[in-house]
Amino acid sequence: MALPLPVALLLGVPANPSFLLSQMQMRFDGRLGFPGGFVDSQDSSLEDVLNRGLLEQLGEAAADFRVERPDCRSSYAGSGPRIVAHFCAKSLTLEQLSAVESSATGAKDHGLEVLGLVRVSLYTLRDGVGGRPIFLENCFIGASREQLLDTLQDLGVVEAGLSQAFRSQFV
Amino acid sequence: MALPLPVALLLGVPANPSFLLSQMQMRFDGRLGFPGGFVDSQDSSLEDVLNRGLLEQLGEAAADFRVERPDCRSSYAGSGPRIVAHFCAKSLTLEQLSAVESSATGAKDHGLEVLGLVRVSLYTLRDGVGGRPIFLENCFIGASREQLLDTLQDLGVVEAGLSQAFRSQFV
Repeated sequence: MALPLPVALLLGVPANPSFLLSQMQMRFDGRLGFPGGFVDSQDSSLEDVLNRGLLEQLGEAAADFRVERPDCRSSYAGSGPRIVAHFCAKSLTLEQLSAVESSATGAKDHGLEVLGLVRVSLYTLRDGVGGRPIFLENCFIGASREQLLDTLQDLGVVEAGLSQAFRSQFV
Repeated sequence: MALPLPVALLLGVPANPSFLLSQMQMRFDGRLGFPGGFVDSQDSSLEDVLNRGLLEQLGEAAADFRVERPDCRSSYAGSGPRIVAHFCAKSLTLEQLSAVESSATGAKDHGLEVLGLVRVSLYTLRDGVGGRPIFLENCFIGASREQLLDTLQDLGVVEAGLSQAFRSQFV
């Protein structure tokens, strides 16, 4: 049974709660998504597979932290059969996040599954569309846009209802 | 008089002409685009401004090459007044391109104007939409999608007419 395990990397700097970064990656298929992996019955645990996937996609800097079960924020039964997507968010220090950005271009999957790591635009520019509104109009894999928005809403970064508004576009 | 100077970085490896990479960046406004800069009347030359912009956006690895006037492929009068967009393409070795990817996260504009560097999906996956077709559905600044496609068409990487098809969507 295959279980995809996308994970968001979220950075909160406690000294300045308004400063928050989130990372996503441009995938091989031209869509934005989160790093993650698939579990099959040979794997020992969800967490092991997930952390191995992070090492492959983000490089050696991912060895400095570990995503554990308490970091899991949601689980969805996907549109495919026998697929459950578990979504985790992990807070990193600014140093850890910068190290991830630096090591990602040397990761095993760079240039294969992953075409590049990008920060998410969390702000809205004065023209009312540049920044987050336009960023969210890009192409995303699976439920990753909604997972991003749900998590940002839980953290108080985006207003309630934004995720639901995107979801209703596709109902 | 301000002149934007976007530039595409294209890599061709002579030993294998079918191996070609192109890089774009996720911009601060949530759109994909090319590195570049703006010229004003104080600047000494278009090329100097462009190469300084590359250093600021791509980091120290951009000092290993210089974009010159023969690399210029097109000039468009943009929609804004007094704006002319010059578009250049530069072939890099694989080593130069990898160095750019590594140095970009340490560039002056990283996390400000630039949220991350991504490779362009140039292939189409077996499902017929993953890869280049989906990548081209993302949000692009100005004429950057057409500039990318025109250049790839000149290099024989994409079929003739693809750029025109996208352009006609917006006429």
